[in-house]
Amino acid sequence: MDLDEREVREVVERALQEDVGHGDMTTRHVVPDGVRARGSFRAKGSGVIAGLPVARCVFKTLDDALEFRSLVREGESVGPGQVIALVEGPAAPILTGERVALNLLQRLSGIATKTAKFVELVRYYHARITDTRKTTPGLRALEKYAIRVGGGYNHRFGLFDAVLIKDNHIALAGGVKQAIMAVRRGVPHTMKIEVEVESFEQIEEALEVKADIIMLDNMTVEQMKEAVERINGRAVVEASGGVTEENVVDIAKTGVDYISVGALTHSAVALDISLDLEGVGPDSSESRIDVSG
Amino acid sequence: MDLDEREVREVVERALQEDVGHGDMTTRHVVPDGVRARGSFRAKGSGVIAGLPVARCVFKTLDDALEFRSLVREGESVGPGQVIALVEGPAAPILTGERVALNLLQRLSGIATKTAKFVELVRYYHARITDTRKTTPGLRALEKYAIRVGGGYNHRFGLFDAVLIKDNHIALAGGVKQAIMAVRRGVPHTMKIEVEVESFEQIEEALEVKADIIMLDNMTVEQMKEAVERINGRAVVEASGGVTEENVVDIAKTGVDYISVGALTHSAVALDISLDLEGVGPDSSESRIDVSG
Amino acid sequence: MDLDEREVREVVERALQEDVGHGDMTTRHVVPDGVRARGSFRAKGSGVIAGLPVARCVFKTLDDALEFRSLVREGESVGPGQVIALVEGPAAPILTGERVALNLLQRLSGIATKTAKFVELVRYYHARITDTRKTTPGLRALEKYAIRVGGGYNHRFGLFDAVLIKDNHIALAGGVKQAIMAVRRGVPHTMKIEVEVESFEQIEEALEVKADIIMLDNMTVEQMKEAVERINGRAVVEASGGVTEENVVDIAKTGVDYISVGALTHSAVALDISLDLEGVGPDSSESRIDVSG
Amino acid sequence: MDLDEREVREVVERALQEDVGHGDMTTRHVVPDGVRARGSFRAKGSGVIAGLPVARCVFKTLDDALEFRSLVREGESVGPGQVIALVEGPAAPILTGERVALNLLQRLSGIATKTAKFVELVRYYHARITDTRKTTPGLRALEKYAIRVGGGYNHRFGLFDAVLIKDNHIALAGGVKQAIMAVRRGVPHTMKIEVEVESFEQIEEALEVKADIIMLDNMTVEQMKEAVERINGRAVVEASGGVTEENVVDIAKTGVDYISVGALTHSAVALDISLDLEGVGPDSSESRIDVSG
Amino acid sequence: MDLDEREVREVVERALQEDVGHGDMTTRHVVPDGVRARGSFRAKGSGVIAGLPVARCVFKTLDDALEFRSLVREGESVGPGQVIALVEGPAAPILTGERVALNLLQRLSGIATKTAKFVELVRYYHARITDTRKTTPGLRALEKYAIRVGGGYNHRFGLFDAVLIKDNHIALAGGVKQAIMAVRRGVPHTMKIEVEVESFEQIEEALEVKADIIMLDNMTVEQMKEAVERINGRAVVEASGGVTEENVVDIAKTGVDYISVGALTHSAVALDISLDLEGVGPDSSESRIDVSG
Amino acid sequence: MDLDEREVREVVERALQEDVGHGDMTTRHVVPDGVRARGSFRAKGSGVIAGLPVARCVFKTLDDALEFRSLVREGESVGPGQVIALVEGPAAPILTGERVALNLLQRLSGIATKTAKFVELVRYYHARITDTRKTTPGLRALEKYAIRVGGGYNHRFGLFDAVLIKDNHIALAGGVKQAIMAVRRGVPHTMKIEVEVESFEQIEEALEVKADIIMLDNMTVEQMKEAVERINGRAVVEASGGVTEENVVDIAKTGVDYISVGALTHSAVALDISLDLEGVGPDSSESRIDVSG
Repeated sequence: MDLDEREVREVVERALQEDVGHGDMTTRHVVPDGVRARGSFRAKGSGVIAGLPVARCVFKTLDDALEFRSLVREGESVGPGQVIALVEGPAAPILTGERVALNLLQRLSGIATKTAKFVELVRYYHARITDTRKTTPGLRALEKYAIRVGGGYNHRFGLFDAVLIKDNHIALAGGVKQAIMAVRRGVPHTMKIEVEVESFEQIEEALEVKADIIMLDNMTVEQMKEAVERINGRAVVEASGGVTEENVVDIAKTGVDYISVGALTHSAVALDISLDLEGVGPDSSESRIDVSG
Repeated sequence: MDLDEREVREVVERALQEDVGHGDMTTRHVVPDGVRARGSFRAKGSGVIAGLPVARCVFKTLDDALEFRSLVREGESVGPGQVIALVEGPAAPILTGERVALNLLQRLSGIATKTAKFVELVRYYHARITDTRKTTPGLRALEKYAIRVGGGYNHRFGLFDAVLIKDNHIALAGGVKQAIMAVRRGVPHTMKIEVEVESFEQIEEALEVKADIIMLDNMTVEQMKEAVERINGRAVVEASGGVTEENVVDIAKTGVDYISVGALTHSAVALDISLDLEGVGPDSSESRIDVSG
Repeated sequence: MDLDEREVREVVERALQEDVGHGDMTTRHVVPDGVRARGSFRAKGSGVIAGLPVARCVFKTLDDALEFRSLVREGESVGPGQVIALVEGPAAPILTGERVALNLLQRLSGIATKTAKFVELVRYYHARITDTRKTTPGLRALEKYAIRVGGGYNHRFGLFDAVLIKDNHIALAGGVKQAIMAVRRGVPHTMKIEVEVESFEQIEEALEVKADIIMLDNMTVEQMKEAVERINGRAVVEASGGVTEENVVDIAKTGVDYISVGALTHSAVALDISLDLEGVGPDSSESRIDVSG
Repeated sequence: MDLDEREVREVVERALQEDVGHGDMTTRHVVPDGVRARGSFRAKGSGVIAGLPVARCVFKTLDDALEFRSLVREGESVGPGQVIALVEGPAAPILTGERVALNLLQRLSGIATKTAKFVELVRYYHARITDTRKTTPGLRALEKYAIRVGGGYNHRFGLFDAVLIKDNHIALAGGVKQAIMAVRRGVPHTMKIEVEVESFEQIEEALEVKADIIMLDNMTVEQMKEAVERINGRAVVEASGGVTEENVVDIAKTGVDYISVGALTHSAVALDISLDLEGVGPDSSESRIDVSG
Repeated sequence: MDLDEREVREVVERALQEDVGHGDMTTRHVVPDGVRARGSFRAKGSGVIAGLPVARCVFKTLDDALEFRSLVREGESVGPGQVIALVEGPAAPILTGERVALNLLQRLSGIATKTAKFVELVRYYHARITDTRKTTPGLRALEKYAIRVGGGYNHRFGLFDAVLIKDNHIALAGGVKQAIMAVRRGVPHTMKIEVEVESFEQIEEALEVKADIIMLDNMTVEQMKEAVERINGRAVVEASGGVTEENVVDIAKTGVDYISVGALTHSAVALDISLDLEGVGPDSSESRIDVSG
Repeated sequence: MDLDEREVREVVERALQEDVGHGDMTTRHVVPDGVRARGSFRAKGSGVIAGLPVARCVFKTLDDALEFRSLVREGESVGPGQVIALVEGPAAPILTGERVALNLLQRLSGIATKTAKFVELVRYYHARITDTRKTTPGLRALEKYAIRVGGGYNHRFGLFDAVLIKDNHIALAGGVKQAIMAVRRGVPHTMKIEVEVESFEQIEEALEVKADIIMLDNMTVEQMKEAVERINGRAVVEASGGVTEENVVDIAKTGVDYISVGALTHSAVALDISLDLEGVGPDSSESRIDVSG
């Protein structure tokens, strides 16, 4: 998995602590010891799956004896009714972990699905889709992973791993040039400098002091087109602000290199996925339990 | 604030650690020492505000010298352009905390806004709107607070503070009665027992062994109506599954006591809020910095 | 084990950190590498055993190569001299973990033993014995588990999972009715409301607003009897305050449903248990080491 | 306070997290904002008070606006009905912190009380009373503080800060001399070496290799007397095992230097203390709330 | 301070926990309550001071009543005997914090001093001195801060905030071009790509695929000179490997942009600093205590 | 390993979190899945190896599938070019863990090497070499382990496990006798009392009240010699202050029992060690990858 395991374990531990606390009162008393079950994760809509290794970690954390098997690859598109993974073993920890596993899997798949839609829309153009820092506090590493699974690209992770000079910085520094020069004196030479601009004058300033990336903030498609022409390869160009499925193609046509889309994370809707359980006798002979009611 | 302060601090610490890491490279080098500023939080759409004390905690954690002032109450409705809070003091920590404060404030206000819509729709009926456990891992206490701010009610917090016997539990226990009786033998007498039912037969079983709450799972409006009549006050009745703004009024009309809506949290869209900054000179004489570009 | 494993691991990690710190100076230097041993946990008094899975966790945490085998079940009564568990493997971690394992096992068995005595005393009556929140800070989950092992029932876990309106709350709210109604407006419908009463007037008020549980606080046996008659099944009745082995039968005879006993945890005395060690040669041939002196 | 503040804060944070969790459901809804109160901690039995700074930390952690005032010194003897401390300020956090504060204060006072009894019994003799490692996991620093408050002395804190060679170590090392010499080669020269002996032969061995402290384990009073004579000042002498209020004077008369008593911690019974609340109006005019029923 | 406060607090908390543990046994018993003192931090050699805000945090963490006053600025050069800071207040926490404060202050000042020497040596040249990842585990943020204080520049913080393709990566990827292209497809566009080369062929490959930074690894001064000429401004050039005070000027003369020096951190020697204490009476009248012996 | 495993894991986890953060950007994208490699740790200078179990823990933490094999024992002397350990398995985690493993291994081996030099110098004398508290914050347990590996002895671990009365304590207490007597009243009898003296008068005072250890602080060799004669076995004698490889033999000749050397840790220089990688095909057939460039 192209995702740091320690990050996954930390999120999963926290989520279980939050949901299970000192114990799952229902399962503890309802499910007899020794009962085994098999659960099927089934998509209830169409989308792109992301987060199966995270779901796996939920169950393994609760009980290492649980077996988790993915039936699709991360990033694969699925349709309604399709079974995407199985979990099998002692019934109690499956029931206890169900909600946490689904909450994470549904959210990450929702992000991957939304990302994939944007990526698909601009597939004939040069532009790449990237995320922003508008992620859920505490889940950034996982959500940025879901972006990659959906075919998108990551922008900087946080305030520490790249420079992005925004309008408020420029105002306080006294201008685009002053801001870029102040930063260049201080940050590691390994770090790129991106600057957010709102006018052609600012673009000229940014080019003059060799900004690495110029972010066109809330420009019209026409302005973006002219900006790309003016920059003419002297800096990477990123479009940002108010990007939707409706306008992303027009933005891509302007020739920008990257389009950053806050909605990928702040407005992603969970992909609906359910977990269906069937009992597996302790004697290993399986007998389907009718759970339809 | 009707919200545990330790929970807020823990979420805020984690969010800052995630976003700021070993330092805000841009602000550290762009913003001169001693520069002060005032930021205005401005709603860019209509909605119900929740989370101002959380935003306050973000800034206070970064620099106790920052002053944060709410201009609206938690739960108040605001319109586009309305300033909802001010933060003033050293400019650097305002810029560093901006994204984390907005990510939390926007998400919580989004949940309160969605909740308030549902609450408004059923305001002439007996039914109350409640949340579910379909919350963001790590943010449950805050999201459930936003539900209350929006006029909704909380369902159980997690697996530990109430019993909810679901279809999979019933299947493994061998029936509604068996499940309820097994739980009653084990859980604290201070804990209510709720059971999810999918048929009138299951309702009869639940009533027979005196379930405290009966959850009607994915029933049609007609089935719900009949269920409410059959139960006739002998248990609290909760409707659940596939509730939308379109069908919630019809569900309320059936006479159920509670309607639980997963979408309040798993599909809430962030309320758009921005932070505008103006410089406040170290000499305390204010000079508006033109941040329009 | 009917006890959350993460709770156990957390308590054990903390206890080992506290006792072992940066190393067991004695064992590190006295016990040669490669020496193996077998330890026998032996009861030195009569009582009910609770906590063997906790003791197991102590040794497994120190060295996964240690084998721990319980010879009695949790909740089983044992007599003086009876061996209740064995631990075998590298000698050093057995010696290092001995005290922590015994401190936890002795305390939990002490609680189970005291609980079992109360349970036995009221075995011919309807009343159930429950614990309180008068537990050792940091050990609540484990101590409440010991209560269950001893045949008792758990009251609420903490301030978060049930409502218990006490005298001070009533005073501040302005009366029993006001307090109950204020709470009902706010707490989840999944949560029961218990109220502590000190008079028949308060009982009437509580019944009027349908309290789920009425706790008779420090009443005489006669008052309790009358209270049970007045309540007459309209609420669960709990007796509390000054319950001892001497008066518990008389209290049970009043017909109350639950008797909560703070002494189960705040005054439990450790059950005396020792760990005897014998050497097991590295060549696997056993040779009893004379440890009698 | 002769007690590390970080230790206190850590225990208090953990205890509050355990008891309060995501919120005190009762107080949150019963106590109106702005209501102030004053609580009086009142002893309900006779004993020695220990832990007031810990109780103070509980309330300060919940709300820094609370004022806590001790009316007695740590280690002072109190009688039934005596008010020992006051807490005043917002009513809600007083109610929320009550149980945690009492659980800690009662346990620590119970230990100080029991210690003071032993200390008083041997006051005419040379021997000092010390604790053991039979403390509550997670509370050792606080319990050892209570021992000092009660007039006792601390034995080593854990396995890391002194050497104590016990019977099992001796058996594995092949004898008292071998064990002591092995340890001396390895441990810091700043660390004393204590050895547990069960016979006069072992005492001779220990003296031969200059043990710093000789612990007489489970010897009769006569044996102890002879042991003290044989040792004759060449090592510090400690009596251990089965010490009770009944036999401690006889043991002290043998001339031993230290008597270690496990019962000080493993069998201390909580000192009964209550918290009485009276309302203090938001207008600062006090009006006693009748909390008698 | 150009250093994240949360980082400082975390390091200081950990260092105090490690050194003080459950209490400073000496100071607790030697220093009477109420005794105040003033400590002077005095340099015992020549060097550049870094870490005074860290030392301040040590004392403030132990006792907020302590006043800490820096007499020199961070980065200032000092000579033997010069007093660089004062700490005043209760004597006990000054003594308890002394060693931790000195350990941190001495190490950071040692790094700043060594950095300043290298910076001074190349002051007439274009090249900047940078650090590496050869820092002390757990202290990286502080040590990189000391580098900046000494006039040096930071290289990347860790593996997460910039790409550095080293010999082993190249070997596994099958060549410089393959490695760079694989990385470019995956990493954020905000991240620079640096590659370590050992031959002119590798330089050509790196330039062909537009590496941002080329690190000349262990080249001779002659090779570096030729490399700089060949690269001719098409990439930033960094020299690395075996840089010493003896050869750094010759390396700088080659025209490289950056010279990274592992020895700045892995071989820095602590700057000798002492803390002298004088008593300040509780009556505030000062009386110098003769501490010369 | 004569080192607490929990300490090692904690240091390693922290170091990896610091260096790897949310992911190794280079390795993640350069190294194809399924590629295996073997790394050889090779000494590049002469020295004593310490820390191989720590390096092993780094790799096992990243990926349990990695095999780590030590080719030398802890404490063994190695020469330039000698391979000291191998790590084999998936290539990615080897590359990711390389720097952290080397940083720890090099530092610990540097300390062991420096210690071994001092030990060798005094090998014909009675005196033992010990460390001090001048260790790297956060690494004390590991650095003190490296001292033992190098043949040295540990002084006290921290402020909590032994008493060391220093000049500032004496000044505040009013004299050597007063300080020792105050401490003896308070500390556990299991704890030795060491006192730092600067004159023969102080030595007499210390002997009068039976200090266990007398530390001669910054005395000349002649003074030390006289001090040893005066003390004449009545206390353990430790020399401290300004000990170097040049003067340690002369100090040893004075007959002191211990010589404590701060330079062992505060001025140890890392032993140069490198990690060379060769590819091992997924098909298990090995093919040396040319990493020479």
